[in-house]
Amino acid sequence: MQRLLTSDPQFERKFARLVEDRRETESDVSSVVSDILDKVRQRGDEAVAEYTARFDRHTLGADDDWRIGPEACKAAYDALEPKLRDALELAAERIRAYHVDQLPRDRDFTDDAGVRLGARWRAVDAAGLYVPGGRAAYPSSLLMNAIPAKVAGVERIVVATPTPRGESNPLVLAAAHLVGVDEVWRIGGAQAIGALAYGTKRIKPVDVITGPGNDYVAEAKRQLFGVVGIDMVAGPSEILVIADGTNDPDWIAADLLSQAEHDPSSQSILITDDAKFADQVADRVDVQCSMLATEDCARQSWEDNGVLLIVNDLSEAPALANRLAAEHVELAVDDPEALFAELRHAGSVFLGRYTPEAVGDYVAGPNHVLPTGRRARFASGLSVLDFMKRTSFISMDADALAKIGPAAVALAEMEGLPAHAKSVQLRLK
Amino acid sequence: MQRLLTSDPQFERKFARLVEDRRETESDVSSVVSDILDKVRQRGDEAVAEYTARFDRHTLGADDDWRIGPEACKAAYDALEPKLRDALELAAERIRAYHVDQLPRDRDFTDDAGVRLGARWRAVDAAGLYVPGGRAAYPSSLLMNAIPAKVAGVERIVVATPTPRGESNPLVLAAAHLVGVDEVWRIGGAQAIGALAYGTKRIKPVDVITGPGNDYVAEAKRQLFGVVGIDMVAGPSEILVIADGTNDPDWIAADLLSQAEHDPSSQSILITDDAKFADQVADRVDVQCSMLATEDCARQSWEDNGVLLIVNDLSEAPALANRLAAEHVELAVDDPEALFAELRHAGSVFLGRYTPEAVGDYVAGPNHVLPTGRRARFASGLSVLDFMKRTSFISMDADALAKIGPAAVALAEMEGLPAHAKSVQLRLK
Repeated sequence: MQRLLTSDPQFERKFARLVEDRRETESDVSSVVSDILDKVRQRGDEAVAEYTARFDRHTLGADDDWRIGPEACKAAYDALEPKLRDALELAAERIRAYHVDQLPRDRDFTDDAGVRLGARWRAVDAAGLYVPGGRAAYPSSLLMNAIPAKVAGVERIVVATPTPRGESNPLVLAAAHLVGVDEVWRIGGAQAIGALAYGTKRIKPVDVITGPGNDYVAEAKRQLFGVVGIDMVAGPSEILVIADGTNDPDWIAADLLSQAEHDPSSQSILITDDAKFADQVADRVDVQCSMLATEDCARQSWEDNGVLLIVNDLSEAPALANRLAAEHVELAVDDPEALFAELRHAGSVFLGRYTPEAVGDYVAGPNHVLPTGRRARFASGLSVLDFMKRTSFISMDADALAKIGPAAVALAEMEGLPAHAKSVQLRLK
Repeated sequence: MQRLLTSDPQFERKFARLVEDRRETESDVSSVVSDILDKVRQRGDEAVAEYTARFDRHTLGADDDWRIGPEACKAAYDALEPKLRDALELAAERIRAYHVDQLPRDRDFTDDAGVRLGARWRAVDAAGLYVPGGRAAYPSSLLMNAIPAKVAGVERIVVATPTPRGESNPLVLAAAHLVGVDEVWRIGGAQAIGALAYGTKRIKPVDVITGPGNDYVAEAKRQLFGVVGIDMVAGPSEILVIADGTNDPDWIAADLLSQAEHDPSSQSILITDDAKFADQVADRVDVQCSMLATEDCARQSWEDNGVLLIVNDLSEAPALANRLAAEHVELAVDDPEALFAELRHAGSVFLGRYTPEAVGDYVAGPNHVLPTGRRARFASGLSVLDFMKRTSFISMDADALAKIGPAAVALAEMEGLPAHAKSVQLRLK
């Protein structure tokens, strides 16, 4: 954990280094991935089965080896204890409600020149959601990826999830049932992304692929960008808590640890104007850490990447926060609005002392798939828009064309495109 | 030019091949580009100057070699003949009006559980627009890229454009003045994209890079996806005209040629239910071609990639059009609405006989940067959204947290994330 003070003459240099460090390993898997994708493209299911046998120790033979049927998903759902099922349902309902209100409006209007203009949104035909196997297989992630697709109106929602040695995660299956996923394929890695993008004999291609994954999955998505639509590249996640000294240090410590426990490369940053409070928080982090089942991970993240940043006045905080462009920003102060008004770059903001980031991970409603590694400067969280596309349209009659056509002719001629000009001129006569 | 009939027993096979062929050369420039980007990242301006000397034969020494100042842009604008200036202004005004109406609404509401939720859109701080040198340097492209950024509220708009042997395109400079571009840099290729993304001593980094370019530029953007935001990968463009036999074959021929004259790899497709009409159009394409200054390009595109597709009934057209997912679709029929209602995948649609695609390239208002190569299945034209990002927010008091917090605790425990659970539990007491 490092301690930074804006009053330190060296602060700017140290802070710049913090902003620069995205904590991402640039492992070069591009040629391996490109080879896997080529093979899947050329040999389809056969190549997918070979890679799955090698990487996941799972044999893809009979239909049941390939797919997990809807009955198995329903059984997993029915087997949930009632309290969990209720929690999952509440989460799904709230996520759905928030995303329904995100649906974009179509446009259709006629302007002064008599030109009818507009834009129409439609869902993509099919979406593929990647769900990692093992530790990072979170049912909440499935909800956060599948519900926006469903709300957008995607007719075919496909999950790809590796089942190492044949083992699947019942919680993920339960979530798939709850949301109404159409197909669940037992495949993972770059080969799964390739199969979803190109299609194989068994697996029809999809139009958009979202969801987190390891370096191979991320690189496969990057290489297939343009063959299909993909969501933003995801790196290690982070939280920035801006808190005054009147907070309960235990609450703030828990918030910082809720990020740290995700991964050793996660980052938790506290900005406060109270140096003593910062010390108290650091103490509570230490104490709480030792009570966590996720202690090793949380402690390493806090030691390697944790930051206590002491400012003279909290009014300095928004400018620093904008440079950090963090995935999650908590404003644990009496008047969060004042700080929020100054925030330009953040994935999601949690206002006030009773809004811990973890409610946003599960049940608040907004999406928890958010831009990491300073990408909130230009990227947004996952939304229904990631599963839709817009078609613009133009409609004119002879009168409208007479008004704006001549300008098009002049510009086409200027750009040296005579057929463009002619297609308008012929209609102007 | 190939002729396809849906009544041909071999039609499905032939049509599938047409859909499959995106006419994109997969030249492997990835290692060259990755090397250029590394050098620019490490050595900044020095590397940019070396590549510019080598590829553009332009020496970057004094400030004036690097940048084209606002005075030069204004001078280029003032030197336009009045008719052209008026046309450019009309185009800019109409594009602006269309894009202003595209601005997304912020959300802020409190739901039944007393949870305040919302989303706030903000512009990125800086946008970089690539404008190719030479043949494809279109002032209309500059308008179509810069105006959405301006309307989004981007405070710093930067153009990078190569000036081979020092020569710049006065029309592009005039358009830059008209839109109010903040900086024009005389750099191009992958090195320009690298300089914009990483920043150098002279050039501050940007957050989003858009605009067309050659294979090196496209590959550089792909490699930097995630370091900055980028627009969709652009391939050769295409038009699909759906027309009945009562159209003037000359009009339709001109429309097909307006796409063909862009590039030999462009594609023009006519779907009609009138085989005789198709022949007439083919004749007129031939005749008009020989009168064009762009004849060589247009003829080659038509010969290599042109398609006459004869259907028994125009009601077959939308399903075919959806598989082609063309960049531009013209509906030259009496009742374009009926066909339009069935279209799911298209970049932009032009309704009726008096709406040639070329008006959309210049003055109609919607963006002419559109998804190509079947990408309209999942991608949209350029818009203000490409220069903005959304921050979601959540605000709760103790009562609201009491209502939804316990479900978050249950889910966090289920996923094995105890610090998540604790951050909520502490506040529930």
